[in-house]
Amino acid sequence: MSLKSVATALAHYTAPFRRVRGSSLGRLVVLVLGLLAMTALTIPDSAKSASGWLIGCLWFCFAYFAVEGASRLRSALQAQNAAAYLLSASGLVDLLAVLPVPIALACGVSQPTAWLFACLWILKLAQNSPSFAQLGRVFVLEAKPLASVLTLSLMILFLTSGAMYVLERDQQPVAFGTLPDALWWAVVTLTTTGYGDKIPITYLGHLLGAFVMVCGIATFGLWTGILAAGFAAESRRRNFIQTWDLVSKVPFFQSLDQAAIADITHRLRRIEVPANTAIIRRGKVGDCMYFIAEGEVQVDVRPQPVHLAAGAFFGELALLGDSIRTANVVTTRPATLLILDLADFRTFMAQHPDLARVIESEARRRVSENERLRKIHELERPGRASPM
Amino acid sequence: MSLKSVATALAHYTAPFRRVRGSSLGRLVVLVLGLLAMTALTIPDSAKSASGWLIGCLWFCFAYFAVEGASRLRSALQAQNAAAYLLSASGLVDLLAVLPVPIALACGVSQPTAWLFACLWILKLAQNSPSFAQLGRVFVLEAKPLASVLTLSLMILFLTSGAMYVLERDQQPVAFGTLPDALWWAVVTLTTTGYGDKIPITYLGHLLGAFVMVCGIATFGLWTGILAAGFAAESRRRNFIQTWDLVSKVPFFQSLDQAAIADITHRLRRIEVPANTAIIRRGKVGDCMYFIAEGEVQVDVRPQPVHLAAGAFFGELALLGDSIRTANVVTTRPATLLILDLADFRTFMAQHPDLARVIESEARRRVSENERLRKIHELERPGRASPM
Amino acid sequence: MSLKSVATALAHYTAPFRRVRGSSLGRLVVLVLGLLAMTALTIPDSAKSASGWLIGCLWFCFAYFAVEGASRLRSALQAQNAAAYLLSASGLVDLLAVLPVPIALACGVSQPTAWLFACLWILKLAQNSPSFAQLGRVFVLEAKPLASVLTLSLMILFLTSGAMYVLERDQQPVAFGTLPDALWWAVVTLTTTGYGDKIPITYLGHLLGAFVMVCGIATFGLWTGILAAGFAAESRRRNFIQTWDLVSKVPFFQSLDQAAIADITHRLRRIEVPANTAIIRRGKVGDCMYFIAEGEVQVDVRPQPVHLAAGAFFGELALLGDSIRTANVVTTRPATLLILDLADFRTFMAQHPDLARVIESEARRRVSENERLRKIHELERPGRASPM
Amino acid sequence: MSLKSVATALAHYTAPFRRVRGSSLGRLVVLVLGLLAMTALTIPDSAKSASGWLIGCLWFCFAYFAVEGASRLRSALQAQNAAAYLLSASGLVDLLAVLPVPIALACGVSQPTAWLFACLWILKLAQNSPSFAQLGRVFVLEAKPLASVLTLSLMILFLTSGAMYVLERDQQPVAFGTLPDALWWAVVTLTTTGYGDKIPITYLGHLLGAFVMVCGIATFGLWTGILAAGFAAESRRRNFIQTWDLVSKVPFFQSLDQAAIADITHRLRRIEVPANTAIIRRGKVGDCMYFIAEGEVQVDVRPQPVHLAAGAFFGELALLGDSIRTANVVTTRPATLLILDLADFRTFMAQHPDLARVIESEARRRVSENERLRKIHELERPGRASPM
Repeated sequence: MSLKSVATALAHYTAPFRRVRGSSLGRLVVLVLGLLAMTALTIPDSAKSASGWLIGCLWFCFAYFAVEGASRLRSALQAQNAAAYLLSASGLVDLLAVLPVPIALACGVSQPTAWLFACLWILKLAQNSPSFAQLGRVFVLEAKPLASVLTLSLMILFLTSGAMYVLERDQQPVAFGTLPDALWWAVVTLTTTGYGDKIPITYLGHLLGAFVMVCGIATFGLWTGILAAGFAAESRRRNFIQTWDLVSKVPFFQSLDQAAIADITHRLRRIEVPANTAIIRRGKVGDCMYFIAEGEVQVDVRPQPVHLAAGAFFGELALLGDSIRTANVVTTRPATLLILDLADFRTFMAQHPDLARVIESEARRRVSENERLRKIHELERPGRASPM
Repeated sequence: MSLKSVATALAHYTAPFRRVRGSSLGRLVVLVLGLLAMTALTIPDSAKSASGWLIGCLWFCFAYFAVEGASRLRSALQAQNAAAYLLSASGLVDLLAVLPVPIALACGVSQPTAWLFACLWILKLAQNSPSFAQLGRVFVLEAKPLASVLTLSLMILFLTSGAMYVLERDQQPVAFGTLPDALWWAVVTLTTTGYGDKIPITYLGHLLGAFVMVCGIATFGLWTGILAAGFAAESRRRNFIQTWDLVSKVPFFQSLDQAAIADITHRLRRIEVPANTAIIRRGKVGDCMYFIAEGEVQVDVRPQPVHLAAGAFFGELALLGDSIRTANVVTTRPATLLILDLADFRTFMAQHPDLARVIESEARRRVSENERLRKIHELERPGRASPM
Repeated sequence: MSLKSVATALAHYTAPFRRVRGSSLGRLVVLVLGLLAMTALTIPDSAKSASGWLIGCLWFCFAYFAVEGASRLRSALQAQNAAAYLLSASGLVDLLAVLPVPIALACGVSQPTAWLFACLWILKLAQNSPSFAQLGRVFVLEAKPLASVLTLSLMILFLTSGAMYVLERDQQPVAFGTLPDALWWAVVTLTTTGYGDKIPITYLGHLLGAFVMVCGIATFGLWTGILAAGFAAESRRRNFIQTWDLVSKVPFFQSLDQAAIADITHRLRRIEVPANTAIIRRGKVGDCMYFIAEGEVQVDVRPQPVHLAAGAFFGELALLGDSIRTANVVTTRPATLLILDLADFRTFMAQHPDLARVIESEARRRVSENERLRKIHELERPGRASPM
Repeated sequence: MSLKSVATALAHYTAPFRRVRGSSLGRLVVLVLGLLAMTALTIPDSAKSASGWLIGCLWFCFAYFAVEGASRLRSALQAQNAAAYLLSASGLVDLLAVLPVPIALACGVSQPTAWLFACLWILKLAQNSPSFAQLGRVFVLEAKPLASVLTLSLMILFLTSGAMYVLERDQQPVAFGTLPDALWWAVVTLTTTGYGDKIPITYLGHLLGAFVMVCGIATFGLWTGILAAGFAAESRRRNFIQTWDLVSKVPFFQSLDQAAIADITHRLRRIEVPANTAIIRRGKVGDCMYFIAEGEVQVDVRPQPVHLAAGAFFGELALLGDSIRTANVVTTRPATLLILDLADFRTFMAQHPDLARVIESEARRRVSENERLRKIHELERPGRASPM
């Protein structure tokens, strides 16, 4: 039993990593390898001693990305939308990963400099990522107020750097001798970066500097406030869209009318779990129940575990009475679960007493069934105590 | 077909820029030109070699803004509210753009210094911008808590700089020799700018410095929190006001009572689209439907495209069943659209089953009409396969 | 008419300052004077030339605050709660403003050093400020998660400074020679202040430094997120409490039941306006209506202005049909107004059609009354055109 | 009476500290002592003069944590889940606190260096803290968007450092001579830390640097926005779960149906108060009422105080009519209270008029009972005035 619990714990800790599929893992390794080799090539010591190895490594990564891009282009050609592919974000990334290095080498640029274009490979991280689309949407939806904040920053930059130039140019002709110098100071100060290469020294300069710093915090706060409001709305919207289809796959919800389905969709949260991962652990405090949208789980009750398939629910006992989980639940296959929190469970069930009754009767049935089976089991093996 | 899709993709990427009208584009060019010339004039090298050109350029921009301001003043005079105009924000910006440079030159200030007042031209960016009004409103509505945070910062500044002056003045008589020195350190530290020109070196000084930095983050967090809360409320309010009038122009919503109209207005999102821009692209996943408040769109269905004018809706098919878009939709004229997201569509339609029925019957009608037309079309041209 | 509009505009711009009452303005002047004198005393030049004047000035401010504190103590003594006053925040501020300087002088501390305790006068800014109580409440309510973030920061600080000390002590024995040195570096980096006095130079040190910076942004984001959530809740709560009493003073709302009053209280926003301030300006776009909770306003309609007292409402015309304001509205006495935004007006009126009817009939009555009066007026003065 | 009010005020100010129980206070003292000794050991001066004392102190702290860990391990062994304990977060912290130092000493590492592992003791702060679990949940729930922001930052880092390396390597071969140098600059700038050890000096470098700083603020804003949205949701959820059980203990709410209980649970706020702490102070403005979930309070009414036990409510008078508190309320034992704010009181009572009636009749009963008792009391002691 001790070995098994160690295995379960290890499975629990490694769950996030097992989600990454093999193909994308290989791709990630190639990407990291390529970027490391490219970085090492710019260090004189390593470039001198291992130049051949590094360039070989880079050519290997280049070949990998070239093949990947070519295969994507071929399937686009077969589907007769090559132009659309090349002009899409994904096609652009593939082009930028493959074209610049050979072009630079062909133009006679030296090896280490030409391979700097391998920096562009980092764009591969963004390819096919739905979360990036989500971030982008927030920026698009909030474009107008964000543009206003940028404009406001620009106005503060120009006006304060003009004033600072007048105040400090006679005292510090090197640091504030031209307006671009003062602009650089203003950018560094307004973003509260504060390199310290240009610092006002007059009293008025100090006052103006303090004003710029406070303005920096204010515009920063506005910027964050806009993004926070936008992100909260976008996050709600995305969750609804992802959950909606799954809800229709759970038979339990099919008796609900449209309004109640829309309501429960807002309340449910979707998670994807790899195989052999513990969802519920006995003895922990439970504050949510689960609906299985896809996959299968195994409930470790005595005498023998029960398997639940898509459409079933579990974990409801903790919400109905005692809040301590009474059994481990582990996925046997990759599963998609819908989580209903205690707060939403209470509220929703209060509005739909018929569903509450279904859950309660099912819970009672399970408890009694489990009790019955255990008694049979104990009768069959009378010689052994059954610690629960 | 390949060329056409390239054109569509280009039109898609350039859409945001085509929204800028010609007149404001010209104005922007003049503004950028003026600011660049003014900046270049402060650099000794360029000022020596191209002084004449730069000053000529500045006079041209000056003339542009003078004419602009004069024409606005004339129309204000004709409307007999010249005083109101001059005291308004817009009038003030016009005055600040035109008056300071000639006054400075008349007072005998040297050319390069006098032209520094051209910095004020950047204020032109804020003129006539509704988003600035929105930012300003947030500051006004949240004035009291923001003032409290500023006061709190001021208190921290004074108390900590007094303490730091006592702690460090003997160790570092140059850096912390006077209270204004310590105040400058406190401002630079509290805003987490951290120039590094004045740094405590005693143990107690380090402790106090750490305290000031943590205070800086705390006040910063408060500031951001206040602005985030204020901006979210203001943003909701503004969206409602802009959308309300448009909703009344869509016949589809006219059967709703007042409460339902207020509800749907909260849910709709308004976008303005220039002509010849793709709204929907075939094959993409759809998660919203559109109502046309103003303008016209063209749906590229076979055998011939359908035109939809103000008051019509489209994109509803993706919300009713299959979520893949079945046709491209492109604007033929600048249009204002109202977007209803999937989440809100489901919720709203569940509460208004009659509207849901209207949308569904219209969707069915369109599908069958389209089917019928395509069959006729295929009968007419039997010799050619029709790839869909 | 031009002079009058200038006066109105000036009244508009100066409104926020006229809110400050005379007594608190005088107090503010004394405070600023005292702090300036105290600051000047630490500058060797000014201390040498004007020492007498500065110390005289400081004694004057000291006397002012001493009298103020004494009068407060006397009234507390009369009310027999002197102990409660001295232990309250306000009493503590009064004690800290008066006691330290004489005690320091009595202990033989030199004049300029003793007067540094005048820094404590800045605490007077917080005395009697309700907004500070609000900020304090947010910190108290969110104390647990904020403490967790502080603990998290502390853990990051100790672990990373220990690691950095090991990594860099051999390379930079001066900068990272002791653990307190490394801790100072960690604080400066985690808060993203970045003085630049201690900078890692090894590769591993750079990696660890980058990790600390990213942790700094993460903990900062958590901190801001907690305060933003807490402030939004507190702000809603405070607005309700302030508005509730005023709502009951407006007869218009007295027909509502408790639930509807609680609803409208959440929607209304309270503002305080000094006398002779323009609330509505003719020709502007209107997006809200006003209820007068206290004070009086004057509506500038022809032929003679109408006065509206507490309990009346105005600005409703812009919400019912045309959105352009048709008359100026100016306060004649300091007034407290309740603002109902367009969005909330629509939603609330849809739920309470009887109130909507009251507002509409009142609006119709006003328009016709105004029309009737103007006709009489024009009949009486037939020789003069009436521009509206 | 003066002494008593001083005692009350002191009890009020020390309330937060009295919440910490004795055992955890002792643990905190040991932790602080150990960390201080470990820090002092790295300072050459103190290490030379007091080395023996410091190491003795460290061994004492080590023994304390070893005993603590051992006792936890023993109870885990008794419960037959030792493996689960050792692999849990708490077990890991115990292992890290005890194992590294002896292992390092056994491996021949010098005393001061081996004791650096005592840094790990700071992890003890996180042990058994529910708030940390809450912070962790926010990170887990928002993992996808946070990962996107990190990826975005990584992309900006690589692309800009590559570009900066090209731009500056010829001008500043020492500062920007290798790509890792440029990467370090990019991290320091993107997080707006700004040490100032590497600063671009070319015009294009300045432009790129400004771009990186603005990107830093943008990604920072996104990060904060995501955490703010996640924290607000998690905070609501946690409050519900904590309050739900307590609500069922208050008889007053037992007549409510499930939906109303879910509703009031969202509105109530839970606080824990140590014994002898003032909850309400006479003469203050009241804006909430209290339900006692656990513990006991004493209401200081004349002629003799009233004791209220779990299930009772108080403070309702201030919400019904006059908002000034009429009596002090002090806890006599540690209590858990549920707070209902004025805003929620009004809204909830409007929806549940029967509960409003219960509260009002109880309030009337208390006032008349109190009045009756005071009259009897005054009749009994006619010779003394009774100041209220």
